[in-house]
Amino acid sequence: MQDFILLQAARGLTTSRPPVWIMRQAGRILPEYRAVRAKFNGFKEFVKNPEACCEVTLQPINILGVDAAIIFSDILVVAEAMGLDYEMIESKGPLFYKTIQNTNDLDTIKIVDANSLHYVIEAIKLTKVKLLNTAPLIGFAGAPFTLFAYMTEGSSSKTFSKAKNLMFTRPDVAHELLYRITATTINYLEAQILAGVDMIQLFDSWAGILSPGNYQEFGLGYCAKIITTLKQKFPHIPITLFAKGANHSITDIAFTGCDVIGLDWTISIPYARLHSAGKALQGNLDPCILYGNKAFIQKNTIQLIEAMKGHPFIANLGHGVYPDTHVDHIKYFIECIMKNV
Amino acid sequence: MQDFILLQAARGLTTSRPPVWIMRQAGRILPEYRAVRAKFNGFKEFVKNPEACCEVTLQPINILGVDAAIIFSDILVVAEAMGLDYEMIESKGPLFYKTIQNTNDLDTIKIVDANSLHYVIEAIKLTKVKLLNTAPLIGFAGAPFTLFAYMTEGSSSKTFSKAKNLMFTRPDVAHELLYRITATTINYLEAQILAGVDMIQLFDSWAGILSPGNYQEFGLGYCAKIITTLKQKFPHIPITLFAKGANHSITDIAFTGCDVIGLDWTISIPYARLHSAGKALQGNLDPCILYGNKAFIQKNTIQLIEAMKGHPFIANLGHGVYPDTHVDHIKYFIECIMKNV
Repeated sequence: MQDFILLQAARGLTTSRPPVWIMRQAGRILPEYRAVRAKFNGFKEFVKNPEACCEVTLQPINILGVDAAIIFSDILVVAEAMGLDYEMIESKGPLFYKTIQNTNDLDTIKIVDANSLHYVIEAIKLTKVKLLNTAPLIGFAGAPFTLFAYMTEGSSSKTFSKAKNLMFTRPDVAHELLYRITATTINYLEAQILAGVDMIQLFDSWAGILSPGNYQEFGLGYCAKIITTLKQKFPHIPITLFAKGANHSITDIAFTGCDVIGLDWTISIPYARLHSAGKALQGNLDPCILYGNKAFIQKNTIQLIEAMKGHPFIANLGHGVYPDTHVDHIKYFIECIMKNV
Repeated sequence: MQDFILLQAARGLTTSRPPVWIMRQAGRILPEYRAVRAKFNGFKEFVKNPEACCEVTLQPINILGVDAAIIFSDILVVAEAMGLDYEMIESKGPLFYKTIQNTNDLDTIKIVDANSLHYVIEAIKLTKVKLLNTAPLIGFAGAPFTLFAYMTEGSSSKTFSKAKNLMFTRPDVAHELLYRITATTINYLEAQILAGVDMIQLFDSWAGILSPGNYQEFGLGYCAKIITTLKQKFPHIPITLFAKGANHSITDIAFTGCDVIGLDWTISIPYARLHSAGKALQGNLDPCILYGNKAFIQKNTIQLIEAMKGHPFIANLGHGVYPDTHVDHIKYFIECIMKNV
């Protein structure tokens, strides 16, 4: 197997240019994605169709020319597999009709194996066949705290008051739920690796709502459990931990055993390099930079590449690309990275 | 004039115990507030009534026993005075019907003096009389970037895409708007000081959505302008800058010339002490800690006080108190601080 530039950087090697991919690259920004999406009645029907997920996973490779595909799916499929159903409300986000509030609610929440997520595993297998080894495929899961936040809050939130209420009044229930999510996520990611993904990313999208101490207790410990378990079995598969907003804990993130630290745009690069314990860094352009004109995008992209020079680095945005971004601007960002040797 | 414990701490002196007040202490948490609020048809009618604002400003002094009153008002009254009207939608937040998108939109936006905000100034004068010098009164304003974010986005937002779109495509328009907000805010805060407030807080509630570089360019420079201008005229009035989420820039915040740095709960205290250039610190309990039981509140409050020991410190939450917090729990937080010498 050839060693892709993405995997080289993830393993801490210096590359001739930074590899680049875009969080949410398979998604609403592409008209080709919207055409596939339109064939389905709802998001859930779409996400459970392996052929459709494979098709939209491959689109950014062909249309944008990125250095990696990431399997199209949703972090919340794990919550559903564990027994908590949700709906994806267009342009609003996920909504759970039932949430976990007490010990009784935990009765319905099971640790499951990847059979209940067979549609993702099938999509991965299909995609690996179709990729013909031209690019690596990234698998992913939500980090336990982020899944916990949705399963207790029921939706996105400015304060996540319900999630924190449970953490601070019933830490026993919170930790039991986190434990079950962790065990399920390990099963799920092992199956993704066995199905062929070349790399893993854990998305801790809501890490930033916690204090450093609370993130250690309710977040990072569970991430470390997942990472060390996977690393023991599959030491060759690089793992990225993207804990959005938890820049206060970058050194602790490095010590979870991950290979790559995902960064949002609210951290200074010199600080990140200094505190990353030598791990590769990924990110971190503010997605809104892509609203600017080409000169502005180029200036900011070159600044980023220069600031990362000499450090193992995977170029990306600091968050998923926003749906109202011009595809031409995304392509230009990628072009700037490809050309800047 | 006696020197209140709050002002001592703000000036960097050691106090026998930390002074304490609560962001949003005059507000929805108190039934007594809701009784006053219910007499008015809308929020705007309420906020423009000096007697009512005075009454709810004094409530926390009597009911909670905090060490300071903060004048009841809203940061967006400045936007309205400058020519951009808004509505406060119950449990949703502010909504502007028109937003600033280009040079033409700027035509309607004026630098104004505090005459157009006379109702706030009257409320301050009334409150000073009624306080009988038993507690200091804090005045406040939104920091320029936060007002800019609302005036361009039109409402609260997860991404503030419209605000950033303007910053990144029309920085000239963005800076002109920021300049006018800054000039108006200086007029407004000067009038507050002349009306009798003992201290000032600038709320940069949306600082955390920017990269460190962008916050320097679009945020901190304007804060520094306000602070240095006020300090020249009124060197005895302490000023707090609370830039929520901008912990990456704590040292730059210290160098704006402020006396006190407001902290949210996502910064580690040792880091904050080390990087605060000796300025007093204010905060920073996660408001959700108050959902826990008394033992939990006590444990977290003592941890905070211990971590701040030896550093000039004003106890507070790391954000405004959430409306679903039990008043008894707020009182207990305050009691823990008062008793822990």
